[in-house]
Amino acid sequence: MIRAGIVGGTGYTGVELLRLLALHPEVEVSVVTSRTDAGMRVDALYPSLRGVIDVVFSAPDADALSNCEVVFFATPNGTAMQMAKVLLDRGVKVIDLSADFRLKDAKEWSAWYGMEHACPELLEEAVYGLPEVNREGIKAARLLACPGCYPTSVQLGFLPLIENGLVDSSHLIADVKSGVSGAGRKAELATLMSETGESFKAYAVSGHRHLPEITQGLKAVIGHSVNLTFVPHLTPMIRGIHATLYAQSSSNTSLDELQALYEQRYANEIFVDVLPQGSHPDTRNVRGSNMCQIAIHQPQGSQTIVVLSVIDNLVKGAAGQAIQNMNLMCGFPENTGLKVLALYP
Amino acid sequence: MIRAGIVGGTGYTGVELLRLLALHPEVEVSVVTSRTDAGMRVDALYPSLRGVIDVVFSAPDADALSNCEVVFFATPNGTAMQMAKVLLDRGVKVIDLSADFRLKDAKEWSAWYGMEHACPELLEEAVYGLPEVNREGIKAARLLACPGCYPTSVQLGFLPLIENGLVDSSHLIADVKSGVSGAGRKAELATLMSETGESFKAYAVSGHRHLPEITQGLKAVIGHSVNLTFVPHLTPMIRGIHATLYAQSSSNTSLDELQALYEQRYANEIFVDVLPQGSHPDTRNVRGSNMCQIAIHQPQGSQTIVVLSVIDNLVKGAAGQAIQNMNLMCGFPENTGLKVLALYP
Amino acid sequence: MIRAGIVGGTGYTGVELLRLLALHPEVEVSVVTSRTDAGMRVDALYPSLRGVIDVVFSAPDADALSNCEVVFFATPNGTAMQMAKVLLDRGVKVIDLSADFRLKDAKEWSAWYGMEHACPELLEEAVYGLPEVNREGIKAARLLACPGCYPTSVQLGFLPLIENGLVDSSHLIADVKSGVSGAGRKAELATLMSETGESFKAYAVSGHRHLPEITQGLKAVIGHSVNLTFVPHLTPMIRGIHATLYAQSSSNTSLDELQALYEQRYANEIFVDVLPQGSHPDTRNVRGSNMCQIAIHQPQGSQTIVVLSVIDNLVKGAAGQAIQNMNLMCGFPENTGLKVLALYP
Amino acid sequence: MIRAGIVGGTGYTGVELLRLLALHPEVEVSVVTSRTDAGMRVDALYPSLRGVIDVVFSAPDADALSNCEVVFFATPNGTAMQMAKVLLDRGVKVIDLSADFRLKDAKEWSAWYGMEHACPELLEEAVYGLPEVNREGIKAARLLACPGCYPTSVQLGFLPLIENGLVDSSHLIADVKSGVSGAGRKAELATLMSETGESFKAYAVSGHRHLPEITQGLKAVIGHSVNLTFVPHLTPMIRGIHATLYAQSSSNTSLDELQALYEQRYANEIFVDVLPQGSHPDTRNVRGSNMCQIAIHQPQGSQTIVVLSVIDNLVKGAAGQAIQNMNLMCGFPENTGLKVLALYP
Repeated sequence: MIRAGIVGGTGYTGVELLRLLALHPEVEVSVVTSRTDAGMRVDALYPSLRGVIDVVFSAPDADALSNCEVVFFATPNGTAMQMAKVLLDRGVKVIDLSADFRLKDAKEWSAWYGMEHACPELLEEAVYGLPEVNREGIKAARLLACPGCYPTSVQLGFLPLIENGLVDSSHLIADVKSGVSGAGRKAELATLMSETGESFKAYAVSGHRHLPEITQGLKAVIGHSVNLTFVPHLTPMIRGIHATLYAQSSSNTSLDELQALYEQRYANEIFVDVLPQGSHPDTRNVRGSNMCQIAIHQPQGSQTIVVLSVIDNLVKGAAGQAIQNMNLMCGFPENTGLKVLALYP
Repeated sequence: MIRAGIVGGTGYTGVELLRLLALHPEVEVSVVTSRTDAGMRVDALYPSLRGVIDVVFSAPDADALSNCEVVFFATPNGTAMQMAKVLLDRGVKVIDLSADFRLKDAKEWSAWYGMEHACPELLEEAVYGLPEVNREGIKAARLLACPGCYPTSVQLGFLPLIENGLVDSSHLIADVKSGVSGAGRKAELATLMSETGESFKAYAVSGHRHLPEITQGLKAVIGHSVNLTFVPHLTPMIRGIHATLYAQSSSNTSLDELQALYEQRYANEIFVDVLPQGSHPDTRNVRGSNMCQIAIHQPQGSQTIVVLSVIDNLVKGAAGQAIQNMNLMCGFPENTGLKVLALYP
Repeated sequence: MIRAGIVGGTGYTGVELLRLLALHPEVEVSVVTSRTDAGMRVDALYPSLRGVIDVVFSAPDADALSNCEVVFFATPNGTAMQMAKVLLDRGVKVIDLSADFRLKDAKEWSAWYGMEHACPELLEEAVYGLPEVNREGIKAARLLACPGCYPTSVQLGFLPLIENGLVDSSHLIADVKSGVSGAGRKAELATLMSETGESFKAYAVSGHRHLPEITQGLKAVIGHSVNLTFVPHLTPMIRGIHATLYAQSSSNTSLDELQALYEQRYANEIFVDVLPQGSHPDTRNVRGSNMCQIAIHQPQGSQTIVVLSVIDNLVKGAAGQAIQNMNLMCGFPENTGLKVLALYP
Repeated sequence: MIRAGIVGGTGYTGVELLRLLALHPEVEVSVVTSRTDAGMRVDALYPSLRGVIDVVFSAPDADALSNCEVVFFATPNGTAMQMAKVLLDRGVKVIDLSADFRLKDAKEWSAWYGMEHACPELLEEAVYGLPEVNREGIKAARLLACPGCYPTSVQLGFLPLIENGLVDSSHLIADVKSGVSGAGRKAELATLMSETGESFKAYAVSGHRHLPEITQGLKAVIGHSVNLTFVPHLTPMIRGIHATLYAQSSSNTSLDELQALYEQRYANEIFVDVLPQGSHPDTRNVRGSNMCQIAIHQPQGSQTIVVLSVIDNLVKGAAGQAIQNMNLMCGFPENTGLKVLALYP
């Protein structure tokens, strides 16, 4: 049994960590911080947790957090990079669900996130926590950067094609649709139900912060730069990401071979499930679970390969993947506490 | 480890039983029947169950079902009453999620359900499965009638008032709102998303089948008939029931005393949670869980008491309650397999 | 052709006024104010109005507004009462969609709205704009107080019963459900899609500001106080209000007679439509239109009468009713510019 | 004033025709057919039309329909081709909202629609009703084939690029998202709210019937075949289509030039609105209106051009476009009866 702390426990990734950790047999959540709600019981803010979480929000405090074996940052960008060093120095494992440690290049980070990086010296050490790519590195990590929700769905979808050099990496397209919980628990006009309900739109077409994270990840696999057009969309539901990926085949690999390749690539991955040929994954089938479901198509036998990849943005796209990483870092079986089935309907 | 069968595994209560039983440590689901989908893998129809349910739909067969210790009927009304007797005779415990065994009076049942009852001789024996009222009877039951979703939320909300004779039982009002999954997984115009999305309406105001079930339950507690006006509504969401109950106080009990009474009544109930005074329960906080959350109000100090009671219609209102009953009938701890938290957001 | 001004054009009632007035044959919208968006084109903020509104938001200015024949206040509570007097003095008709002039008693207003009333001397003159009750008064009004959305649906539903003394006015219940646009276009956590989507809850059970408005209106009709329990709920849709009203019959009037009474009462009302006996009005059938659809029931022949009343909260509950009032005040046919049909599906 | 008939008035395109035609100043709807609902008042099925449509559903009858100047077919595929000839022979203009006359090649039609074409001899004469491409042909048409909803949004988005030869027509991608009303008013499991609400998925990736319609349309413009990958998706809302189009620039045209080109191309089109550079069109802004709103992007200055195009599938994608075509065929101003603004929020 280890003690875990959560910094920034009032956002959607924070409460999702609490939902999952409350039933994790090896973890006790002992500290949950919130500047604004310090002093309030966690289950007063989140009645869904009544009976399972007996903790009061506290102001963030390095000493209190240092009593934990692992600390999750479910904070806005720019917070974890202020506190990570002191916790690491005291021997605490740090798992950051924000973007602070995802990019290796501090300048690129600053360009996309609009602030100076507070501890660029840790960027090199930080391990990018996509277990399907990087499991051994994660096991040894002290500082873990949890992937973004879009990057998780896009990378898992493209990986088998990229790793095997089967497509033209200079013309990749990711048309991705997200539920509104991805925007976080923030009082904003744009994510009011009256604004996003019964409506659909693209956003940030000129450039979204998850773009450099995805291309960095694909480049690491393939060994050279890729060219990706990434268009995120907001869809009128709460949870779920659906990535529709397009790539131009550069080989004569048949659809049957591609299907076999995907099944083989993910055969030993607990949380990636390649659906039978001809399937259309549906976000509802992973809602609340840590699964990524994938299907591969090649319409009308054309050169264009279409990959469909779905996750729950708050689970495999955030809190679930963070716990999967924690399990690896702490030596627990990878799916401990994550045997949660999707809520259908 | 017991073997369980599910008759009618393709409806929403059937798949919800599967979601919960898949992780139940004492139960193996060995038979799932479906006339229309016989021969198909269960997880081909329900990809959310991939990896946890390794069963093929079979046609309903008494012999196969007799190998189970317990059989759940998640069938339309009129099916369980055809098969219950033969299974009981072979020593199988039967838990019926349909309405076949809910009413004690076969004539009243026929009047509301529009068909003759096929085995009225079992009505007396059948135990009404609301554990908060009837726990000892349930433990000893062979044939269990699972309460309807509306009746669960309404009875749990009214019980403390009725048991203590604090309100005028001749003027009860239950204004109840349900998500559309309560209508079942049937191809019908009325529950298309284009019909029910972004819209709200009452239905069956002149008389709904759950009315006699509720009044029978309240009468059993109070010892004489009650007069209830029950108006169900369809609300544009998938899961959840919100009952708003109105009763006229017939005593001088204060709101503080009522609050204490409710807290005391349900103090030992795992799945009924009385919220702090002034609360407004929200269906999202029980979505996917077996909890009933309740709050009690007395607006402007008037004579009218207002009770708010929320459940997930597919869990505490159907599959979860069925498993709670099974646990009692089989001697497992009451919450085995039901430690599932609500999915928020 | 008259000139109209809108103060507070960036909220949902403001943009709904613009949608309807853009096609009104007798009105030109010449001024639309917004402190925060002054200088921006209206159709840049609201692309749905491109091509029909050629106006730029301006800061509120009494001189500019005085050039209008009529000025609508679509502002938060507390603004119209600051500006109404100066406009009235310059001969402008004022139509207030906020709550500033709805209550006749300044002390009661202060108690519910939490601020001193800035011009209590106008409360007596202000005309409550429910045309179905008060048409002649409205025609002569200089200062019009548009009813709230809940009060419109509740009063129209209760009126025929109250006017004819057919029910016990000391035990009225209004269980009312609203879409989230009723909460306005404000950046607030509570109305995020992630908070209100797929969920249902009551709120303000202890007392909502629309309660004194409703009871004031019913009292004016009946001549003495009524006792009303009013419970508002938030339902996961954008537009629509569904009022479910309960009253105890105090006469032997049959349901057929009640139906005839309702039909007769509203026979000449363009915007109130009594549905055939046995109907269940659905908010979708009035979405976007100025109609109120009503049905009356008496379940199981009991003493309890159930009235169902639906409106679009932004149209008959706000902007549409405001224009209906303007038509009366300006001598236009009452339905000018309001021949808009509901958007189904 | 002309008389219009609607064959198949009980589907969503049928009732949308009724909503729009009810307020069309030049049209009286005199016949509405429905086999299943013959004898029932139209407004009994559709209470949203109470007070504006005084017609009873009748069984389809060529004689009755021949008294109309124009007959709309809002029927499933395969019906209009059975009845068109007899009506044309009697001098009635026929506007088909189904797919029967959209493809020029009867064999291709049969391959995609799974039945023999009943009157291939009319395919040549039938005019494809996309006014922005084909206005003069439409004016002279007797038999009009209304475009599908997906093809309308995709063609309007691609046209300026294709007409000017600015992109590689052998690598076009259309990733399109539709609300569920596009599936029609049919009792089907797949479009239940419990199935489609809160979920997102692609469908028919291997080939959708609208694909040959789109490629036929683009080929007619460019003079040779195009290669298009078309992936439709179902999004959890009722109305709206959002097309995200990807093409590889084959020229050095700048984004500014592309923007100017689009604005110029549609400058005289009432129902196509090119948004300012950098915009993200939102389906809510065209909900209920006949507008198509378009934006053009070129992310990170790459070779990939991204066009965003939104319509309401039931209006510009069906009933509204049908009326636009009728106006042209009958010599009315093109926007008569179509000055309907989008319903926001």
